[in-house]
Amino acid sequence: MQKYKKDGDFSYALGTELTLELLQSHPQQVISVYVHSKQKDNEIYQKIIALCQKNKIEVIRSDKAFNIVNAKENCYIMGVFRKFTNDIDLSASHVVLVNPGNMGNLGTIIRTCTGFGIDNIAIISPAADIYDPKTIRATMRAFFRVRFSYFSSFEEYLQKASEREIYCFMLDGSTNLQDVVRPQKSYSLVFGNEATGLAPEFHNYGKSVFIEQLNTVDSLNLDNAVSIAVYHFVNLK
Amino acid sequence: MQKYKKDGDFSYALGTELTLELLQSHPQQVISVYVHSKQKDNEIYQKIIALCQKNKIEVIRSDKAFNIVNAKENCYIMGVFRKFTNDIDLSASHVVLVNPGNMGNLGTIIRTCTGFGIDNIAIISPAADIYDPKTIRATMRAFFRVRFSYFSSFEEYLQKASEREIYCFMLDGSTNLQDVVRPQKSYSLVFGNEATGLAPEFHNYGKSVFIEQLNTVDSLNLDNAVSIAVYHFVNLK
Repeated sequence: MQKYKKDGDFSYALGTELTLELLQSHPQQVISVYVHSKQKDNEIYQKIIALCQKNKIEVIRSDKAFNIVNAKENCYIMGVFRKFTNDIDLSASHVVLVNPGNMGNLGTIIRTCTGFGIDNIAIISPAADIYDPKTIRATMRAFFRVRFSYFSSFEEYLQKASEREIYCFMLDGSTNLQDVVRPQKSYSLVFGNEATGLAPEFHNYGKSVFIEQLNTVDSLNLDNAVSIAVYHFVNLK
Repeated sequence: MQKYKKDGDFSYALGTELTLELLQSHPQQVISVYVHSKQKDNEIYQKIIALCQKNKIEVIRSDKAFNIVNAKENCYIMGVFRKFTNDIDLSASHVVLVNPGNMGNLGTIIRTCTGFGIDNIAIISPAADIYDPKTIRATMRAFFRVRFSYFSSFEEYLQKASEREIYCFMLDGSTNLQDVVRPQKSYSLVFGNEATGLAPEFHNYGKSVFIEQLNTVDSLNLDNAVSIAVYHFVNLK
């Protein structure tokens, strides 16, 4: 057991719900499951142990391991797994995050997007690490459902993705989100970094869109902006 | 200088932007401004010093004070102020937060609501502390603009507020947000606690509304739900 490393091969699902989801969706990737002495012998624990037995996964009882990964309170079970890929479907509609910096935000965005049926996320590097246990925890299990790929630049992403309509969300966008008409093909909703937004050159890709605010002194935070945009798009008539 | 206390009379605006906004909007409530030795002599610093001189506010140079309030990195100026009230306009449209538990969420919600012109927030106790420096910081200055009041129960709130349309956001709400028609009078958008949502009895107040999701395993987080709802309501035609 060691601290999570961005360039390592393993990550951790912290807590009973994440570990159960991990065992159900990717049993072949699970290396071991750690159990803290404070874990109660309840229904979800029984399910986890049964899945470990079925898949011949080692169950290790150790309290120390939880200190190593800095697990929060009430995290008494964790699953160690090999990082796996679940590549983006390049023909589907996507949310594209350009240089997202915050792991909590990235996780929350994944949770919200998959909730609305947008299961494909493109991430443009440099960016927060989707495999970090903090990101995974913030996805509330959606990590095990989302399809995602990292790209080294937006151009690389565009070359690989299917023909599509591009909507770049920018404070000085030219189209009000309220005036966007329903896209006729797959689309990409593109958002910039939390602090800096999208660079001006993104005005050159597809449509630039703004979310109208009355008090524009401080813009929406990133995950609220993505939520509003995705909800609006999936409900366009 | 002492740690922030929920039942104390003072709070802190952490950072140059918050302190400047504090000095501009509520100079009479400011007791002193602390400056760290790492603060640069830049334009915003000059503005802050000028406002302190104009309003005869003491400027204290001390690095230790910043440790006491657990200020984050890059916070080299803070304003100490007497807590003030900016009571809710009981005839306006409101967002009502029932027992919000998280200070960061509360701050982000205030930031987003005021961005969309909903400047009045009712908070039903027990609830996170709006005056806590963490909440204030998360509002990104909107704290100095929002009007808010705490109520001991939703019933107390209802008795005091003007006649209005009530929309309670619940996972098992009866009306899809997409089918809500534009209210004809002031309205209240009511949201429950992050973990527990609204209790079933809220079905009895006005309309219960749900935000449709395809994957409903894990619902939207609170500030994303509020963002979507407020944006949708202010844009109803």
